[in-house]
Amino acid sequence: MTFDLLATDTNSSARAGLITTDHGVIETPIFMPVGTVGSVKAVTQVQLMDEVNAQIILGNTYHLYLRPGTSILEQAGGLHKFNGWNRPILTDSGGYQVFSLAANRKIKEEGVVFQSHIDGSRHLFTPESVINTQRSIGADIIMAFDECPPYPSEYIYAKKSMELTHRWLARCVAAMGQTEPKYGYEQSLFPIVQGSTYRDLRQASAEYVAEMDCDGNAIGGLSVGEPEQMMYELSALCCEFLPVYKPRYLMGVGTPWNILENIALGIDMFDCVMPTRNGRNGMLFTTQGVINIKNKKWANDFTPLDEGLDCPTSRFYTKAYLRHLFVAGEFLGLTIASIHNLAFYLHLVKQARIHILQGDFTPWKNEMVHVYKQRM
Amino acid sequence: MTFDLLATDTNSSARAGLITTDHGVIETPIFMPVGTVGSVKAVTQVQLMDEVNAQIILGNTYHLYLRPGTSILEQAGGLHKFNGWNRPILTDSGGYQVFSLAANRKIKEEGVVFQSHIDGSRHLFTPESVINTQRSIGADIIMAFDECPPYPSEYIYAKKSMELTHRWLARCVAAMGQTEPKYGYEQSLFPIVQGSTYRDLRQASAEYVAEMDCDGNAIGGLSVGEPEQMMYELSALCCEFLPVYKPRYLMGVGTPWNILENIALGIDMFDCVMPTRNGRNGMLFTTQGVINIKNKKWANDFTPLDEGLDCPTSRFYTKAYLRHLFVAGEFLGLTIASIHNLAFYLHLVKQARIHILQGDFTPWKNEMVHVYKQRM
Repeated sequence: MTFDLLATDTNSSARAGLITTDHGVIETPIFMPVGTVGSVKAVTQVQLMDEVNAQIILGNTYHLYLRPGTSILEQAGGLHKFNGWNRPILTDSGGYQVFSLAANRKIKEEGVVFQSHIDGSRHLFTPESVINTQRSIGADIIMAFDECPPYPSEYIYAKKSMELTHRWLARCVAAMGQTEPKYGYEQSLFPIVQGSTYRDLRQASAEYVAEMDCDGNAIGGLSVGEPEQMMYELSALCCEFLPVYKPRYLMGVGTPWNILENIALGIDMFDCVMPTRNGRNGMLFTTQGVINIKNKKWANDFTPLDEGLDCPTSRFYTKAYLRHLFVAGEFLGLTIASIHNLAFYLHLVKQARIHILQGDFTPWKNEMVHVYKQRM
Repeated sequence: MTFDLLATDTNSSARAGLITTDHGVIETPIFMPVGTVGSVKAVTQVQLMDEVNAQIILGNTYHLYLRPGTSILEQAGGLHKFNGWNRPILTDSGGYQVFSLAANRKIKEEGVVFQSHIDGSRHLFTPESVINTQRSIGADIIMAFDECPPYPSEYIYAKKSMELTHRWLARCVAAMGQTEPKYGYEQSLFPIVQGSTYRDLRQASAEYVAEMDCDGNAIGGLSVGEPEQMMYELSALCCEFLPVYKPRYLMGVGTPWNILENIALGIDMFDCVMPTRNGRNGMLFTTQGVINIKNKKWANDFTPLDEGLDCPTSRFYTKAYLRHLFVAGEFLGLTIASIHNLAFYLHLVKQARIHILQGDFTPWKNEMVHVYKQRM
């Protein structure tokens, strides 16, 4: 995997770059749709390519490990072959879901013992095992196993948690070195900065992570309930201590304005369930602002969902029709809203990239955060 | 609307024809996907055109009348404009849903009083009102208001019900003559043969319907629980007394083999929720037979869903992946199964048409009913 830094904004730390993987290139800044169990919910692979213009998608190791399981994925020849997605895939390490979904989890030095949220079966994730699982999934980008402390966390807990994450990281790096890709293409490991909301911990963690000299680096444990301003300050701090010439991935963030502000701070990669999850609840992000499509005001609005997007779905369907589908509880509404929101997120990062390259990112960003935030 | 009869099979009553409407032509025999409230469940309009190759879809007057309602549909300029489907649309009269879904329905000479299954609100459907509603929806083919008696029905009830349906038909024909299309294109009325399982009633009803000299004719009240053989006998009887040079529509039928057998009897048009409803439950109809995709045997079957179809969805996705989506409860599974099953139904009638035109329909049909029926 290589990362070419093509341009940096003069008035902010925003960057435009190009990540090259064995499954193709990724233009940064980029948003990665979340494909939890190997499918981006309610969206087909063709729609992801042709309507959303997704360049890379995410898979969740915890979910894929439980279903369909690594045996099926290996027999298929990896997740790309299994779900037919031929572009890059990133997998998380499973750590986040172990803490948010699984039952009776117990953290030890060795790893985490937990029970499946599906059938209660008992499992152990270790740094070595999650590297192996991600080798079997065949992700282009593999995430290190970490503990994501909740917000707020006591300093002493945050420090111990970060130190455990660092020891696990060293084991992940070693495990990567001792194993080979299973399907003939390269897999890159990204370590994760933790440290909760404490600036000294965040700096120490970013420095430790930077020393690992991996292909790219991630920031975890933000957007977990802390105030927005605090997230921005900690993201900026982490970026300061992470290498310039490697991609920076801010995990699980966020709203369109969160993404724009973090691009300004030097973040290159984002993922979030918000466009699909909120879409399924009728919340649309558009180039004009935020829409609750279930609102009665859209009942006879026969204008397209969003004429500001190239996405055929956003231009074909009207607000009145989509509102009708939501009111009637039709499956098609979930699909249309998901495609539209994802297309908007990909449009957002593409526009940011264009403005970084042409040198007017900051004034554009300052205007757009207000436009995109407004309720319609 | 015109109907051109292009060929009749020498060994059966199967026919190939062409229906021409103001929204385009329909090659018969044809299957019409059901778009209950203005959407074919879980399938986009683009998928219906490009993957399923649907030539005409159905809308349910009862559902559309309740949601979004005729006011919204009129403001949109009709259902074609509202949902973006530019090819022909047929609407049922609402009669069937009034009897199967609504509460506290009361049949009078004037029409049917019922309560909405959604909010309990009280409504009256009359022959005149359902013609007006279908004018507002803007269907290319409008169905007459009928009573569909349950199976089994006593002779005396079936006879009275048929006579009421006939009086309502006369009022529908009159209402059609006294009203105009609302959107500048032609709308055709199809009357419906009833008479339950009684041969003399079916004959009388088919003769009465034939006398109305409408653009096409339908057979209702079959496939409501009677034995398959009885359905075929009654369908054949109705076809005998319905005009040769007008399309014949068998409502709500059925399995792939039901469709093939009824094509052999002289039916030109079909609709059924089976491909979409059964698809959402994991039952796939394929060119090799019937599949329960949730079965464990498909867990590591990495062959395409159905290589015998042109449909990109059926060729792109594997049985193992679709099984995984169903086991994991992913929305995408519903979409893939629905598209595949609809594509199979359209493939079925297209193949039937090809074999009618080339003169070997009967031996092909006799082989295929066995192939399509077998459980895989």
